[in-house]
Amino acid sequence: MAATDDRRPKYQRIADSLREAIQSGEYGPGDRLPGENDLMTTHGVARMTARQALGVLRDEGIAEARKGAGVYVRAFRPIRRHGIQRLARDQWGNGRSIWSADIESRALEVDRITVSEETAPDRVSAVLNLADGEVTCVRRRRFVLDGKPVLLATSYLPMPLVAGSAITQEETGPGGTYARLAELGYEPAHFREEVRSRMPSKDEMTQLSMATGTPVILICRTAFTDRGRPVEVNEMTLDAASYVLEYDFDANPKTMPPNVPDPS
Amino acid sequence: MAATDDRRPKYQRIADSLREAIQSGEYGPGDRLPGENDLMTTHGVARMTARQALGVLRDEGIAEARKGAGVYVRAFRPIRRHGIQRLARDQWGNGRSIWSADIESRALEVDRITVSEETAPDRVSAVLNLADGEVTCVRRRRFVLDGKPVLLATSYLPMPLVAGSAITQEETGPGGTYARLAELGYEPAHFREEVRSRMPSKDEMTQLSMATGTPVILICRTAFTDRGRPVEVNEMTLDAASYVLEYDFDANPKTMPPNVPDPS
Repeated sequence: MAATDDRRPKYQRIADSLREAIQSGEYGPGDRLPGENDLMTTHGVARMTARQALGVLRDEGIAEARKGAGVYVRAFRPIRRHGIQRLARDQWGNGRSIWSADIESRALEVDRITVSEETAPDRVSAVLNLADGEVTCVRRRRFVLDGKPVLLATSYLPMPLVAGSAITQEETGPGGTYARLAELGYEPAHFREEVRSRMPSKDEMTQLSMATGTPVILICRTAFTDRGRPVEVNEMTLDAASYVLEYDFDANPKTMPPNVPDPS
Repeated sequence: MAATDDRRPKYQRIADSLREAIQSGEYGPGDRLPGENDLMTTHGVARMTARQALGVLRDEGIAEARKGAGVYVRAFRPIRRHGIQRLARDQWGNGRSIWSADIESRALEVDRITVSEETAPDRVSAVLNLADGEVTCVRRRRFVLDGKPVLLATSYLPMPLVAGSAITQEETGPGGTYARLAELGYEPAHFREEVRSRMPSKDEMTQLSMATGTPVILICRTAFTDRGRPVEVNEMTLDAASYVLEYDFDANPKTMPPNVPDPS
């Protein structure tokens, strides 16, 4: 440590040294970190200082407290979500759910689903080019991995397109929503995904059973037909501690995306 | 609000009502929120309760304190970063920097740059298929928008590939690193971007002048030649309050990405 760092408060110095030990692999994912008592002894500090040091790592999302058991290095074993391969037509075209490739042999399940008719929020209506008051089919799903909720997805489809189809049912059948859209003559051909990140609201934290100090990733995915008609907007909220998004693409894509309005 | 919500503590109820007012547009981006005194009067609560309520919105990244001036709705005027179009060869092939499309008429500038020879971290060496101890050219840059740092980028290139070229200089010349790689016979043809989000470290917060309650987005981009050889790994750290990432792609991409090792 450089001499200029000596102005750091004690708890910060302890936090920094623990962080370095984690980054160097001295403490691996899931390992228990030294407790307050250990830190008090090792560094000759008061309990509050030790607590603050561990608090820094919790706030950064590097460590997590387990009730009555201490503070542990957070295990980052993410779901790898393939933005592009995942949506390749030959994947959903033959009856597989688009989500099956998300998890690479880990079981992602829907544990909550509601389907309703609603007026979409303005930002969604704008992207879907809806007339004033035009109603959408709204599919809200929560996805769980190993009992832990990891993803909230709210999908909006123009009601005139999907009325009477299985898309308005909880069970959409083999291949899911996109296979049904194809049967209805609105086969998705282009996708746009917009990705943001922010801290979760209290409601999102509750729904995703999130630890403190963890952001959410927001993905707004729009599906377009080959004529550039937007047919679905899917607003997804992901527990950032559970996901890596992957996008693979060529330097010179053969096709450009349709010219579409900007939702943000 | 439903009766079941009445168990919420007072500060939480105030925070929830302010959040709803923001989401409904009653307070827009950059607007000043009611101060502690206002909330004390309106809701008949103690100063500490009012302060906690505003603290909730700050922690969620919805609001930000300005010294001596109160608490404001955070303005989210993001840079739109086009993952795919941005890297299209016809963009960097004719001398434009790949970053120029990031900002859509707003001026993103490099305000810090260092170039050095270093042994890359193990995760990077693994992706680049480097032999033990093989050295990389490391280009570290900080990008600033309107005086605010928004992006840290650290690029690793195998030294044997780039030694003696302008890539080892601060100024890489027209078209940047990718144009030089093409001249060297290592033209990037495929890209993989992996996207994560987490809370920033103290050092990242400082380097990006970040507000409390804001996560960073991490992008690890790997560039491959058309023969699948990895030629660059670029680890980027973005202030999440400043960015929307956009990826546009087709349902049935013509080419699949090369089969490459997994860096995470």
